[in-house]
Amino acid sequence: MSPKLTYRQSGVDTIEAQSFVHNISSHVKRTQKNRQLCNAFGLFAAAYDLSAYQHPVIVTGTDGVGTKTELLYEQDMLETAGKDLVAMNVNDILTTGGDPLLFLDYLGISNLKKETPRITRLIAGMCDYLESCNCILAGGETAEMPDVVPDDLVELAGFCIGCAERDQMIDPSRVAVGDVLVGYASDGFHANGWSLVRRILREHAGLLTQEELRAALAPTRLYNDVVNQMRAKGVAPKAYAHITGGGLPENLERFLGDKGAELQVPFWQNEPVQKVLQYVDEQDRFHTFNMGIGWVAIVHPDQVETAMSVGPESHVLGCIRPGAGIRVSVAS
Amino acid sequence: MSPKLTYRQSGVDTIEAQSFVHNISSHVKRTQKNRQLCNAFGLFAAAYDLSAYQHPVIVTGTDGVGTKTELLYEQDMLETAGKDLVAMNVNDILTTGGDPLLFLDYLGISNLKKETPRITRLIAGMCDYLESCNCILAGGETAEMPDVVPDDLVELAGFCIGCAERDQMIDPSRVAVGDVLVGYASDGFHANGWSLVRRILREHAGLLTQEELRAALAPTRLYNDVVNQMRAKGVAPKAYAHITGGGLPENLERFLGDKGAELQVPFWQNEPVQKVLQYVDEQDRFHTFNMGIGWVAIVHPDQVETAMSVGPESHVLGCIRPGAGIRVSVAS
Repeated sequence: MSPKLTYRQSGVDTIEAQSFVHNISSHVKRTQKNRQLCNAFGLFAAAYDLSAYQHPVIVTGTDGVGTKTELLYEQDMLETAGKDLVAMNVNDILTTGGDPLLFLDYLGISNLKKETPRITRLIAGMCDYLESCNCILAGGETAEMPDVVPDDLVELAGFCIGCAERDQMIDPSRVAVGDVLVGYASDGFHANGWSLVRRILREHAGLLTQEELRAALAPTRLYNDVVNQMRAKGVAPKAYAHITGGGLPENLERFLGDKGAELQVPFWQNEPVQKVLQYVDEQDRFHTFNMGIGWVAIVHPDQVETAMSVGPESHVLGCIRPGAGIRVSVAS
Repeated sequence: MSPKLTYRQSGVDTIEAQSFVHNISSHVKRTQKNRQLCNAFGLFAAAYDLSAYQHPVIVTGTDGVGTKTELLYEQDMLETAGKDLVAMNVNDILTTGGDPLLFLDYLGISNLKKETPRITRLIAGMCDYLESCNCILAGGETAEMPDVVPDDLVELAGFCIGCAERDQMIDPSRVAVGDVLVGYASDGFHANGWSLVRRILREHAGLLTQEELRAALAPTRLYNDVVNQMRAKGVAPKAYAHITGGGLPENLERFLGDKGAELQVPFWQNEPVQKVLQYVDEQDRFHTFNMGIGWVAIVHPDQVETAMSVGPESHVLGCIRPGAGIRVSVAS
């Protein structure tokens, strides 16, 4: 019989795993300045007390960073990957009117020891964004899976839980004809459409300089500043939309039912993005990319002016009209 | 200039994605017989109303299926992968005394069209388990990531949210010297230690027949039946432990502080498992595998008899004593 094996010899190091949990604890603490869990980090599940809410409704969603991850690892932009993961999830929660309370991450890697410095930076990036929106890093799983996850890659999934008072939830069924769509600028492609971007970059070597590529990889913007200011200024949006895969049409049509709009977006002032877009089908680009608008608020006409004053770079995109369908063009 | 590209040409098919969401909707519905979301599936986030709880505390965690996934795909046991994903997460929630309410899945695949039949079966398996514990499939993300996810593999992450009344939460700090550890049988290795199992199977070709391998891959048992019967019979456990990676020692030590126990587990009557264990280090096996015990309840001595009557195959493993550390041996 051959010598008996330990778990470590098969490529999984549980001692290393404990040391990793210790390493990230200072980052985790940063996310609990204003909100706290009601049991210790490290039990089987994290607990959060909602008894301060009168009629709590929890809201939840999951998302990843898609194939953008591959370029982020090639460019060693791990902090950005962490920010993207948080923003993709927290922005979805913000569309409901709920407060993002808890975030969890699932990281799949091939070798923990080798990847520890990189995933520690990834978690630092996550915690930068989580700290800025008062959302607790409530738990996570870092799964060491030799052979299942390719070397030099991290598989990323994020989950977020928020909570709202029942009567303060945003209800998109209240959107009416005549309401106005106000758009807020994105910081680049965010985390959608990268399979197409990567193909174009492969087919047109040298299209972007290193500096331009890194600019195009800017993290997904977190729109909590817009939402908080809207609340502070008394704007009651009928709906929010987070513009991700599917672009403006699909992310608005999902809740507009038999209503629609003709939208005009301003020319997307972003040189690396424009260099890529020249190779993208003229119609398909609106269904793949955010086209410079990462967040949309739909408000009553009386509230447009205040909504415009919130957050940098806001634009009136159009008005709700009867008839399903969103059509988008670039303002000339 | 070369012809302009569409998103579909880069390997991502959003029409296929909509058709997939339609395909799984009958499975999703099965998980909402006794509990319902309070908005439609398909918005940016799923919402669940907690106002029936007096002092709600939400509990949450995330987990995957580890490298067991690779063997499950090789054996075309997709339904089992779905059940494993649910059980790994729901069991963690059950340790708190909370009801599992919402589950979300994140699936990373290389090609949606090719993988649709397999991930539909995976989701059917998830929904079998979710239906049996009244937990809603509240959302999910199926990310098509050509080049990032290897062909013929699905990257899996699950996420569960539960809720408990604050004063009914299980508080492991109440565990006292003299309390009794009652163990409940596992259905095999569950979803931990597979990197080691796979290495042994590679080094000893033919060790298991096809039939034995499939038996060893049985899905992680869902312990909601044990928890529900304990509640029905008035047993108030001081703690529950879900025995996953790290085995009995690490999953009990995490909450026992300066207390510990000497445990004896019965001989693990499972032929394929024993064939594998002969090649595993005598001590390391207790820290890698569940050793036949997938769930532990710690109860007051007065409640041992009732706790034993709950669920099939229960065993008294030992008693809590002063002094940190869990030592485990097999009863002779």
